[in-house]
Amino acid sequence: MFIDFEKYIKTQADLTDQDIKLFRDTAMEKTLRRKDFLLQAGDVCRYKTFVCKGFLRSYRTTDNGNEHVMQFSPENSWTTDPESYENHTPSSYNIDALEYTEVIMWTKKDFDYLFEQLPSLKVYSDRLIAGNLARTRQRVFSAISATAEERYDEFMKMYPGILTRVPLHMVASFLGVSRETLSRIRHTQVKP
Amino acid sequence: MFIDFEKYIKTQADLTDQDIKLFRDTAMEKTLRRKDFLLQAGDVCRYKTFVCKGFLRSYRTTDNGNEHVMQFSPENSWTTDPESYENHTPSSYNIDALEYTEVIMWTKKDFDYLFEQLPSLKVYSDRLIAGNLARTRQRVFSAISATAEERYDEFMKMYPGILTRVPLHMVASFLGVSRETLSRIRHTQVKP
Repeated sequence: MFIDFEKYIKTQADLTDQDIKLFRDTAMEKTLRRKDFLLQAGDVCRYKTFVCKGFLRSYRTTDNGNEHVMQFSPENSWTTDPESYENHTPSSYNIDALEYTEVIMWTKKDFDYLFEQLPSLKVYSDRLIAGNLARTRQRVFSAISATAEERYDEFMKMYPGILTRVPLHMVASFLGVSRETLSRIRHTQVKP
Repeated sequence: MFIDFEKYIKTQADLTDQDIKLFRDTAMEKTLRRKDFLLQAGDVCRYKTFVCKGFLRSYRTTDNGNEHVMQFSPENSWTTDPESYENHTPSSYNIDALEYTEVIMWTKKDFDYLFEQLPSLKVYSDRLIAGNLARTRQRVFSAISATAEERYDEFMKMYPGILTRVPLHMVASFLGVSRETLSRIRHTQVKP
């Protein structure tokens, strides 16, 4: 499992074999079956998690019981609740597996140690956070400016092939539209 | 003008008088009249900007000419287009002054130099970016889960007193609702 991470991180940051060993020595591997939770709302998010294989979903539940998908995390991506992780506060998010998933996790203490030891990791992490902020800002802009059709098109470009892995009601939830609206959009688009 | 920034930054980061001098030596002061632009779409955002006094708005314009407000920046806050600033790419954003405004600006080159010289500035900046990401994520969550009424209430808590400084159509634009919807919400709320 670690080999998947090693391949990935070497394309992202300038790391020696000794650096990789530091990652390996502090990493915890975990497998999740479909519907298993990586994080449950109310718990503190104690790990930075890298998805080696599979597919995770981060979502929040409102008081009326509706689930709202904030993020999809396929292989070769990271997932965490940044606020809960940084501040040791209970998370509002659930993270669960939509299919069989293999992840590698680091505690905050260990990852902070890696940051101290590996300056290029901080550069990579800053770039990752900047990208995350840019995508989140774009999602806000789409939410306040675009039609549901445009938001669906943008989503499909961002996550090509996702519809084979994610049920439609979760896509509707991510986009903030009803299932009926999403069905109507898809029905209109497949016509000539 | 710099004294406003000095007061503010001393509450945020552990800085000596010598550190403050580094900020002062590299800072540029600028005043904007109402409707003046700090940044126009198509230009590269070359500065990190701190608002000492006044009120700025960041917005994007869609192809059909509609303006969509991404951010309000009152005194004692920062504004920039992070993507354009980091990557030297043309910005999609306009930033203009909604009232007489005084700002201090640093070029990327100078601010990167400050980062090198002042480790506590990086800690402060990381915390600022994390807070920005958290607020932006919350705005996405509200956009996909909350009613227009709930989003308006959240906005008023986040920016108390803003209605004396910002016209209603800009609030509607920030929330992604029509002016008619916002008027209806406000009309309902003032009733007993």
